Amino acid sequence: MTSPESLETFHAVIPAGGAGTRLWPLSRASHPKFLLDLDGSGRSLLQHTWDRLRELIPAERIHVVTGVAHADAIRAQLPELTGLMVEPSPRDSMPAIGLAAAVIGATDPDAVIGSFAADHVIEDQQAFATAITQAVAVARTGLVTTIGITPAGPSTAFGYIESGAGLDVAGAPSARAVTAFVEKPDAETAAAYVTGGRHSWNGGMFVTRTDVLLDHLARLQPGLHQGLVAIAAAWGGDRRQDVLAATWPSLTKIAIDHAVAEPVSLEGGMAVVPGTFSWDDVGDFAALQDVGAASSPDTVWIDGSGLALASDGTTIAVVGLDDVVVVRTADALLVTTRAHAQRVKDVVAELKARGRTDLV
Amino acid sequence: MTSPESLETFHAVIPAGGAGTRLWPLSRASHPKFLLDLDGSGRSLLQHTWDRLRELIPAERIHVVTGVAHADAIRAQLPELTGLMVEPSPRDSMPAIGLAAAVIGATDPDAVIGSFAADHVIEDQQAFATAITQAVAVARTGLVTTIGITPAGPSTAFGYIESGAGLDVAGAPSARAVTAFVEKPDAETAAAYVTGGRHSWNGGMFVTRTDVLLDHLARLQPGLHQGLVAIAAAWGGDRRQDVLAATWPSLTKIAIDHAVAEPVSLEGGMAVVPGTFSWDDVGDFAALQDVGAASSPDTVWIDGSGLALASDGTTIAVVGLDDVVVVRTADALLVTTRAHAQRVKDVVAELKARGRTDLV
Repeated sequence: MTSPESLETFHAVIPAGGAGTRLWPLSRASHPKFLLDLDGSGRSLLQHTWDRLRELIPAERIHVVTGVAHADAIRAQLPELTGLMVEPSPRDSMPAIGLAAAVIGATDPDAVIGSFAADHVIEDQQAFATAITQAVAVARTGLVTTIGITPAGPSTAFGYIESGAGLDVAGAPSARAVTAFVEKPDAETAAAYVTGGRHSWNGGMFVTRTDVLLDHLARLQPGLHQGLVAIAAAWGGDRRQDVLAATWPSLTKIAIDHAVAEPVSLEGGMAVVPGTFSWDDVGDFAALQDVGAASSPDTVWIDGSGLALASDGTTIAVVGLDDVVVVRTADALLVTTRAHAQRVKDVVAELKARGRTDLV
Repeated sequence: MTSPESLETFHAVIPAGGAGTRLWPLSRASHPKFLLDLDGSGRSLLQHTWDRLRELIPAERIHVVTGVAHADAIRAQLPELTGLMVEPSPRDSMPAIGLAAAVIGATDPDAVIGSFAADHVIEDQQAFATAITQAVAVARTGLVTTIGITPAGPSTAFGYIESGAGLDVAGAPSARAVTAFVEKPDAETAAAYVTGGRHSWNGGMFVTRTDVLLDHLARLQPGLHQGLVAIAAAWGGDRRQDVLAATWPSLTKIAIDHAVAEPVSLEGGMAVVPGTFSWDDVGDFAALQDVGAASSPDTVWIDGSGLALASDGTTIAVVGLDDVVVVRTADALLVTTRAHAQRVKDVVAELKARGRTDLV
């Protein structure tokens, strides 16, 4: 589609990393969560993320930052992609997004970038577009802007964004200042957040001018800033790989939340716009079921209920277990319950401890 | 080994039928329980049954009665077997054992036969041999003799044999009259049986002179007797298949327990000798675990316990479920609990109802 005028110079950055160990055995180090088709649509989470952004901006302005191991798989899933940035090693989200900011800002000084996780589920494209458009308008004023997702309930699985006074920004009538980012709350606190109306879910979406982000980095993480600027300067030339190899391993491994969002929010430099779309990070199999994943249709349930998936097409029978989670692949099988879904990562840890790198 | 003198003219009959639907997906109509290697020994239940008997008598005196579908698999598992009797269709245990009695008795008028299920688990060969030797001695006196298994506990999963007065039979000091066969009891009754000392488990092992059994049949099931005698008369000649085809389908479908053992016990014609070996009919996965089946060794247990089998060699992980039963084959997967092990047969019924004959 044609990019709306307000989204000109807007670039999207998709950091594509993280195995998603709580979705083992579907997700593997070699085939992480973002590459998976979890809704049976034929499109992976990464492809859905791409599709949402592609509705708003041209392919040339969508960038993916990933590791060497997944570059080929991403190119295969996203044939339109021209802006693939390959990290020599994982350094968490700040170096990935900072590199994109430095590279994009070098050729487009007016650029506003937005970072979007590769492996989240969002429904309601119109509401997503509205939130992005407002966030870009706010970001142009020099604020680092996040999208606060209107809570669907008092979840204890997500961090929250606390909003303060309304901002007077043209084109962003719902924008407010961010007063704090808060960690995953207990159930009582979460309930109070939802009732109070000032808290929204932190979906990890940040929209900012590249120069604003780099200025914050220069102040808060000067070493990281210096390294990213050096890499960006060499990006378009023959020395990219040499400078990457020399510089990347020394960059501070840190998330954008801790490096920029939290300190800048305390300085009054962060804004939030509401995201009224449904959103989930699909952190485990309980979440996967909640976002609508259906059991394999030939599953036999005898006094049983839950989620039963067979990626190899075989038949599963469950007898006498409720809220069970059964996930079968060609080489492995997980049996657990919704209540234990978060502990699936312990299986991956145990398999690593046993040296079963073939299974993780 | 050399057959003991007391076991001369003793023949063993192994009726090999029944799919064992409560052991789905390991057991199938095409690959029933008796063909399965359930203890990882490399020998099937049928082969273990053969091995136990082969310790006592030569191969020529061990007979297997089965259906057309399993004849080839049985020949492959038991290369020494010469006495395979193939039924045109399943008619339950009385026609199978009665046919063996008629055929064996026609060539060996002094024959004593013992029937042994193909798919039970027995440990302690010496105790087994002692029980058989005593039972054969009692059977020679004209009593139909069963082996009453000393209960390992107050099981409600088995039928019981109630014994009466001791019998004075040379070579069978422990023999007693049978006063009744009783169905699977409730827990309170089972506890009383075990405390009382007069009840033993009915393992379905019957030892009898062929002429005694056929005389009982002539009186109690005259039509069945007539048919079996006609088939036995044609067994060694060219007309075997013709007579089988003409006669077999009309034979009464009945178990030996109902046809002979129960009515004869009421007439004082049944004896019991104790079997002090450990025995189980491995009726479901809970029983399979109880007889020592071990989970696949690479199973990952995270706050979980139970039985996890992968016949395809893949890795199973269980998180947060106790007493679970997980059984994976190349084409199917069962997830249940020990407490629901008996209901696994409902899966087979459901798959049949769906027309999934490929899976049952």
